[in-house]
Amino acid sequence: MELLEQKIRQEGRVKGQGILKVDSFLNHQLDVALFDEMGKAFAKRFAGEGVNKILTIETSGIAIATCTARYFDYCPVVFGKKYVSLNLDQEIYSSDVYSYTKQQAYKIMVSKKYLRPTDRILIIDDFLANGKAAEALIDLINQAGATLVGVGIAIEKGFQDGGALIRQQGIVLESLAIIDGMSEDEGIVFRDQSGKK
Amino acid sequence: MELLEQKIRQEGRVKGQGILKVDSFLNHQLDVALFDEMGKAFAKRFAGEGVNKILTIETSGIAIATCTARYFDYCPVVFGKKYVSLNLDQEIYSSDVYSYTKQQAYKIMVSKKYLRPTDRILIIDDFLANGKAAEALIDLINQAGATLVGVGIAIEKGFQDGGALIRQQGIVLESLAIIDGMSEDEGIVFRDQSGKK
Repeated sequence: MELLEQKIRQEGRVKGQGILKVDSFLNHQLDVALFDEMGKAFAKRFAGEGVNKILTIETSGIAIATCTARYFDYCPVVFGKKYVSLNLDQEIYSSDVYSYTKQQAYKIMVSKKYLRPTDRILIIDDFLANGKAAEALIDLINQAGATLVGVGIAIEKGFQDGGALIRQQGIVLESLAIIDGMSEDEGIVFRDQSGKK
Repeated sequence: MELLEQKIRQEGRVKGQGILKVDSFLNHQLDVALFDEMGKAFAKRFAGEGVNKILTIETSGIAIATCTARYFDYCPVVFGKKYVSLNLDQEIYSSDVYSYTKQQAYKIMVSKKYLRPTDRILIIDDFLANGKAAEALIDLINQAGATLVGVGIAIEKGFQDGGALIRQQGIVLESLAIIDGMSEDEGIVFRDQSGKK
């Protein structure tokens, strides 16, 4: 998606160890107009698939998922929670995630009420790197007996193995920008997706 | 706001100790069509005030803030983070919050880059009870020397003191639904706001 790649080129900052800082528009300050365009792009790529629910994970996926739901006939958005709050039901699906960014393991949970066997679910998240968060969301969908339509990601780190692992399972994974390489000196190399809608 | 009060009546569940569960539409599963209407309502209540940024706090405020930004000419949304991630800048404003819901204290942080003295900021959040989260966001705005235009809340627990404490400071606080009393037996009593836009 050209608009997102432009924004990454303009405002993204590459740090050591494969870290891309995009907090000026994606995960601390949020560019809602850009998110609306991203939502439209996901809607094109997953058109006609009968998506009736969007699943994401707190925190950074929520705004993008919210903007995407508008283009799927205002379907409900459900976000996986990273901890047990006192307000959360006991009746939950749960899966484990290890975050390399935060260097800690955590549980992700969704109330059983909000994942149903009749659901046709699109997963939306901001980043895909090693794919651990996406795998956990897929696990929750499988536990519920719901149908996974596909996975929509804003920025995929194509130089990490999460994307390949998910696509190998036959899952439709659409990333609006795929970064095949980046360094502080040489900048960011995007995978050519010019054939995409 | 009639639509929100209806939704609370239909789907909200009152638990002991002043807890209102609205996770079917507000803070676990999200009703984006409702959030769009809430965004429109905030835009009416804070029209002509030159709002150029929306500040919220993770997690549940993000989706509502995102839907509200659309009605303020797609201004940026910034969300306060509840912990230090490795990706967060060192240059931050920080304030302390105690969450009675989670029974723990935490820090909330915003990068100094995203709060500027020229900003005219609308705070948006899902709930206001004792007002601790809102007070921390106001503190961050004051630290930045930015202008607080007002506070927009989806559901205010009018039987707790946060709303009164904020209004006493002369701050414009607009809550789309104010609950003056609730119990498992007798249901929910809303404050009459029929004179509001």
